[in-house]
Amino acid sequence: MAKPYVIGIDMGGTNTAFGIVDARGNVIASDSIKTGKHNNFDNYVDELHEAIMRIIEAADAQGKINGIGIGAPNGNYYTGMIEGAPNLPWPCPIPLAEKITDKFGIHCIVTNDANAAAIGEMTYGAARGMKDFIMITLGTGVGSGIVVNGQLVYGHDGFAGELGHVIMKRNNGRQCGCGRTGCLEAYCSATGVARTAREFLEIRSDESKLRELDADAITSKDVFDAAMAGDKMAKEIFDYTGTILGEALADFAAFSSPEAFVIFGGLAKSGDLIMKPIREAYDKSVLPIFKGKAKIIFSEMKEADAAILGASALGWEVKDND
Amino acid sequence: MAKPYVIGIDMGGTNTAFGIVDARGNVIASDSIKTGKHNNFDNYVDELHEAIMRIIEAADAQGKINGIGIGAPNGNYYTGMIEGAPNLPWPCPIPLAEKITDKFGIHCIVTNDANAAAIGEMTYGAARGMKDFIMITLGTGVGSGIVVNGQLVYGHDGFAGELGHVIMKRNNGRQCGCGRTGCLEAYCSATGVARTAREFLEIRSDESKLRELDADAITSKDVFDAAMAGDKMAKEIFDYTGTILGEALADFAAFSSPEAFVIFGGLAKSGDLIMKPIREAYDKSVLPIFKGKAKIIFSEMKEADAAILGASALGWEVKDND
Repeated sequence: MAKPYVIGIDMGGTNTAFGIVDARGNVIASDSIKTGKHNNFDNYVDELHEAIMRIIEAADAQGKINGIGIGAPNGNYYTGMIEGAPNLPWPCPIPLAEKITDKFGIHCIVTNDANAAAIGEMTYGAARGMKDFIMITLGTGVGSGIVVNGQLVYGHDGFAGELGHVIMKRNNGRQCGCGRTGCLEAYCSATGVARTAREFLEIRSDESKLRELDADAITSKDVFDAAMAGDKMAKEIFDYTGTILGEALADFAAFSSPEAFVIFGGLAKSGDLIMKPIREAYDKSVLPIFKGKAKIIFSEMKEADAAILGASALGWEVKDND
Repeated sequence: MAKPYVIGIDMGGTNTAFGIVDARGNVIASDSIKTGKHNNFDNYVDELHEAIMRIIEAADAQGKINGIGIGAPNGNYYTGMIEGAPNLPWPCPIPLAEKITDKFGIHCIVTNDANAAAIGEMTYGAARGMKDFIMITLGTGVGSGIVVNGQLVYGHDGFAGELGHVIMKRNNGRQCGCGRTGCLEAYCSATGVARTAREFLEIRSDESKLRELDADAITSKDVFDAAMAGDKMAKEIFDYTGTILGEALADFAAFSSPEAFVIFGGLAKSGDLIMKPIREAYDKSVLPIFKGKAKIIFSEMKEADAAILGASALGWEVKDND
């Protein structure tokens, strides 16, 4: 029988946040440690174990943990390994699930952060009850988690759902962190928005509040603030970003014809500034048979809890928890 | 208990082919009728019923049919309807599964032709044992059937897997039959190859055997024949086609990370002429973590039987066959 709690761990390049979650999706205790503090992975696991045992004891949850779920950069569901994550201080592959399972004596399941977000959305958020949806996470990068027939799409190797890296500009596309050019992520991430701002400022001559800022240091937040204050160029930067994303979603519809696209992450907070051009470009671009069908909606997860909740949902998949 | 045979029906705009298939994928009897002969759909069903009963009797298979599977243009697995097929003589939606089930007293399942091909490949062909693969059918159009976790991807509305209509050229793309521009199908179908030939002949001035033909009547077969005879331009037409397809497959890998892409249909017969540029473009374009993983292979289905076999495989899904 399932035990009453799960642990969710959101492992990022800077911080590792974790929490105890109940079956209704309440985070009943949480804390975090610095990911990069330890040059040795085992020491990191030791500190994480100590910190998690502390909140387990405080919550009187000893023996009541059904499983541990981790969302980690390039985390592989099948192997439990982190394979090739550039922003972590340890050599890859990292046998994450195995080390955590051994240390805690509780079975641990790993996936990447965007997949964890999709599972969280399906378990506790805007995609409850949906069998086919695509989660798009707009952060430093563009991530995705695809659900088909009620199941996360992992692909044959565990790495499916890299929609941030479909090519949106085949000629003269922007350099992407993956080494190629023209990827969706190079345009529609927070970083992409800042790059668009710098491009617009350079190639255009019209006025903008953004010209008052140091171009090299402009962030998507600066563009958001300027757009909210009525700045025309800033609004057009969001139009440009949303249009590319809407065109991409139209292609994704041709793949899995989802009931909804769920947009999550920092940029999603831009609301209609980003949603309006996404919807317009989607409606204009999508194949006629899909027109007017898929909803494009924002995540319903509280951002502070979302990553922990998403990761924790994997903990319910654990069956051998005795 | 499953009965020993299934019926597969491949419904095309011109012909409707059908056959009785056993559990090993042998077509033990087959025949065809003209699809367009009847202005009334019920009369078509009557003729189809008569013709199929004839082969059932000849094969002594009365009472031994487990189910009927149909691959039909725009056939919807969920509703059993044909919804909006431009090349059929009857008004849509057409309640195909219901009419056939009623007429035959045998449960009938419908899907579109490319999905049927994928199911056939998984049941009897090159994708046996694969849980994640993508079937690409290169014919008059470009169709696709996507398998994830061993299941066909139908999407929330039954129309998933329209990969022929992802956009490969966002600017100045060719007009596609779907009403949009720049679709994969406008380049990589047999028709697309002929269009490329006409374009090359018009904008280039180098010699080619293709110049001896009436440009308006050129077919992909003409281009194939010229390429096999060593014609440089004809080979470059295949390079151009294969490169676009390889770039598209690289994007599809980012979606579902399949174990294999299975290429089927008339153009697949061009062998290395098309496969070499597909593979080169794929290897060059695909995200580093997918490099060297997915196989790109030709279908192992005999083309004459493939459509019937693919459709027939749906007949094994029928459980209520008493």
